[in-house]
Amino acid sequence: MPQENLPPPGAPDIEIARAARMEPILGLAERRLGLAPEALVPHGHFKAKLSLDHISGMKDRPNGKLVLVTAITPTPAGEGKTTTSVGLTDGLNVIGVNAMVCLREPSLGPCFGMKGGAAGGGRAQVVPMEDINLHFNGDFHAITSAHSLLAALLDNHLQWGNELDIDPRRITWRRVVDMNDRALRNITIGLGGPAHGIPRESGFDITVASEIMAILCLATDLHDLQRRLGDIIVARTRAKEPITARDLGADGAMAVLLKDALAPNLVQTIEHNPAFIHGGPFANIAHGCNSVMATQSALKLADVVVTEAGFGADLGAQKFIDIKCRQSGLRPDAVVLVATVRALKMQGGVAKEDLGTPDVEALERGAVNIRRHIQNLKKYGISPVVAINHFIKDSQEEIDALKRICGEMGVACALSKHWAEGGEGARELAEAVKAVLDGGSPQVELLYPCEMPLGEKIETIAKEIYRAEEVVIVSSAARDLKEYEKLGYGNLPICIAKTQYSFSTDATKQGAPEGHTVEVREVRLSAGAGFVVAICGDIMVMPGLPRKPAAFEIGLDSSGQIVGLA
Amino acid sequence: MPQENLPPPGAPDIEIARAARMEPILGLAERRLGLAPEALVPHGHFKAKLSLDHISGMKDRPNGKLVLVTAITPTPAGEGKTTTSVGLTDGLNVIGVNAMVCLREPSLGPCFGMKGGAAGGGRAQVVPMEDINLHFNGDFHAITSAHSLLAALLDNHLQWGNELDIDPRRITWRRVVDMNDRALRNITIGLGGPAHGIPRESGFDITVASEIMAILCLATDLHDLQRRLGDIIVARTRAKEPITARDLGADGAMAVLLKDALAPNLVQTIEHNPAFIHGGPFANIAHGCNSVMATQSALKLADVVVTEAGFGADLGAQKFIDIKCRQSGLRPDAVVLVATVRALKMQGGVAKEDLGTPDVEALERGAVNIRRHIQNLKKYGISPVVAINHFIKDSQEEIDALKRICGEMGVACALSKHWAEGGEGARELAEAVKAVLDGGSPQVELLYPCEMPLGEKIETIAKEIYRAEEVVIVSSAARDLKEYEKLGYGNLPICIAKTQYSFSTDATKQGAPEGHTVEVREVRLSAGAGFVVAICGDIMVMPGLPRKPAAFEIGLDSSGQIVGLA
Repeated sequence: MPQENLPPPGAPDIEIARAARMEPILGLAERRLGLAPEALVPHGHFKAKLSLDHISGMKDRPNGKLVLVTAITPTPAGEGKTTTSVGLTDGLNVIGVNAMVCLREPSLGPCFGMKGGAAGGGRAQVVPMEDINLHFNGDFHAITSAHSLLAALLDNHLQWGNELDIDPRRITWRRVVDMNDRALRNITIGLGGPAHGIPRESGFDITVASEIMAILCLATDLHDLQRRLGDIIVARTRAKEPITARDLGADGAMAVLLKDALAPNLVQTIEHNPAFIHGGPFANIAHGCNSVMATQSALKLADVVVTEAGFGADLGAQKFIDIKCRQSGLRPDAVVLVATVRALKMQGGVAKEDLGTPDVEALERGAVNIRRHIQNLKKYGISPVVAINHFIKDSQEEIDALKRICGEMGVACALSKHWAEGGEGARELAEAVKAVLDGGSPQVELLYPCEMPLGEKIETIAKEIYRAEEVVIVSSAARDLKEYEKLGYGNLPICIAKTQYSFSTDATKQGAPEGHTVEVREVRLSAGAGFVVAICGDIMVMPGLPRKPAAFEIGLDSSGQIVGLA
Repeated sequence: MPQENLPPPGAPDIEIARAARMEPILGLAERRLGLAPEALVPHGHFKAKLSLDHISGMKDRPNGKLVLVTAITPTPAGEGKTTTSVGLTDGLNVIGVNAMVCLREPSLGPCFGMKGGAAGGGRAQVVPMEDINLHFNGDFHAITSAHSLLAALLDNHLQWGNELDIDPRRITWRRVVDMNDRALRNITIGLGGPAHGIPRESGFDITVASEIMAILCLATDLHDLQRRLGDIIVARTRAKEPITARDLGADGAMAVLLKDALAPNLVQTIEHNPAFIHGGPFANIAHGCNSVMATQSALKLADVVVTEAGFGADLGAQKFIDIKCRQSGLRPDAVVLVATVRALKMQGGVAKEDLGTPDVEALERGAVNIRRHIQNLKKYGISPVVAINHFIKDSQEEIDALKRICGEMGVACALSKHWAEGGEGARELAEAVKAVLDGGSPQVELLYPCEMPLGEKIETIAKEIYRAEEVVIVSSAARDLKEYEKLGYGNLPICIAKTQYSFSTDATKQGAPEGHTVEVREVRLSAGAGFVVAICGDIMVMPGLPRKPAAFEIGLDSSGQIVGLA
């Protein structure tokens, strides 16, 4: 249902979002998903959580088809995974397919820093935009609370005699806050004398970087959630034995704090199609996908479910398949690879300010990037549909060239104008995706088996996906990997943290770099989330605010409406 | 509507709460308060926020009558202000009065420490108990976020050149978290080099101690909220000029974060009477009352509104009248003074373990405490109704003695058995309160005029209410008071922070101490909340966890129900 009288797509996203007439969420849930009001927990009139009881009651229903939206290597030009996911969903509904979308929740902190909101854009948005960008049903606040409780219980254990013999120098559990606050990155706590804790070094990360966020997104039900919370390793003893959240008696109370947050949030696109927005783990030190609970529930409720993964396909799709799908049993039935003419020209060496000038040659130079992503996906047994996310200044020659390149690679390709035209503009893409789905599902192969040693798994990803010539695991990291294997964590998948701006670990190497070395400087065990993080480069887990933060522009107008949030 | 088949009142509160059949909140709001669903923002099926738009539309309606519930000096025996407030509300409804209750929200942190939940007890509870004790519509999380944003913007200002010339040694704005976490009381932040902030000392308080909590509870609408947020003083310049949140450009974004939190939360008593539970400022460094928004809205919706104030009447009622009423224009039409036989016996010197033994003499010795509270309330022009909150082991002789003492003081007195019997058990109290209300409202006098110098205001409270012989304001505090007056804050009311366990500043002085000295060690300006805090003693703004925190018992049972939360 496209809406009349919306502002033009060039208008600020918040104006389009606010002009969109929303359908009451209980009505939409009943009309579109056959959900009775009792199956939902309303949060206002336009948001609701799907109740955990209802979710467990749907277990035996057949699944719909799952479409993963991923992208070429990101550039400052923007590729538009979220808008494409929303636009494709609206487009599928335009052509008569009962589709819904599953997205990640935006983080509160960055809203007040650089980037403003994150709920799609133009005519491809999810609403209510302000609520989705702020607080959003309290999920991230619940994660912050559970994380804080575990931290407080840990320091409290030290304070009351440290019966478990925790080594205060080997505490890895930091604290979190959902705010960009660089001054909290490195702190000393427990100062002021015997009544005020044990002095030690620590720091805060942003909430989305919490292992609890990854856990919430991978848990399959409340019991699995509590088990994973209990498995979190927070410290080592003086004898270097791991101490878990369960050892501290924290897992029950943490699960209580997260009970409501585990339920997926139902909202709508501006074309009144259902959307789950749930969970938002970092795409570097975590896997960067929305929750398994949301994706699985959506598959019980819609014929086609569109979802996205963070960063480019080398990180996002790889982790989606090798972590989220491996752990949950989900498999994509189709994959959409989002590309833009602009981004490929940047991959071909064009500066951002020159992107308005047609340049087919640069596009062809930059196409090495998309070619490699397509080849990588084929290693998983997947032939993606390339979505050309249309920008107004794209020339016909450039679009034709990109279509030709896709043809040469043997993959489908469709131009999509959802940003300007909503679902109607995504009709071509929707038809292409529907054709793939109608043709039967691919036999998706995981990249490596669980049994492979941890170091070999890292090497496999680096060589097969990043095309590294050499993989160096520094000796301290190699030692830690051996220890994880000894402790029984050798069968976990790998979550690589590296720059999203290159296949390599050097953000400046655009296109399709070759002959590079991947260096693993550090590894971390996320025993609750169920993966081993391999860190290749500097990973920012607590952003800072810029000189002029977005917060300066955000406020209320005289009628109490929010301004400046996009 | 008393409920059938509830567990006996001695059962854990959570079992009674869970056995109570709740009425869907939108239905209750319509039936009892005449509110259409559009006037409410549902949070699940049993909680809702009253929309700010609807509140501003009710401005011209007449007000109901306001009943303040306060208490004698607290002892470890417990006095039961919240249960009495709930029981009285249910009792008023039993005798045909359309009454609702306004309470404070419990804090999340302490739930996992000592005390478990805080939503009444026995047959006098508000529900849904678990939701009220956890997250509760996100209000406290919103306060934490707004507080964190201001802190981050402040340190960010230092990082980017400190244009305002803030003195990093004179920053008074700390950070907050809604958790008992002693290791965060005293910390150093900004460590790790130039990219990570300016090193300085700081610390965390618990969220309820944030000035933003007091602001949320005193604001009369969104604009007043934003004005107060802007007025918060966070630091001084090197020239010692105050720096406000407005100077940092934070007030607009903070107001956006608090927009939803400003709307009162509607729930119900287990007897299906409406309850607003909204805001929960500390009763020491803040004024300890629920929000003005909730109280004012309730007065537009019900004939009688019952509300409570923190600690004993020397602190709670004094601040309720001289801060909340002074700022908002509210005035109590009746005051209930809660007393228990047990607590008065403790005031008379009986140890907690001996309270089960009848002891009329001890009661009479301890009655000096209630006598003084009654005299104090009379200074405000108020003749309270004494509510004897019944405990099973109270003897008839003791109850008769207390009733006689009240008679001698010329105040009404009623025995109330709401804990065991719900509203039916509070019938006698409800009749007594109704008789007072029917007799016309008192001419409530504030204790001091705004124009009085700050030091004299402190002296007035200490001498008139605490009955101090001498008031000593240490020289640094006296100097600060002079400065506040010079800056234009001389007309603010005083908020005294002292022990709640004695009229004096010595927690061990029970009964009705005389001849004592009140020493003001420090003063703080809460320019946004609109009061000057005078600190007389050690004030805890970040609690710690005990050796065996309540968190150890809190968890989920096999069906996903919360256990251990009470």
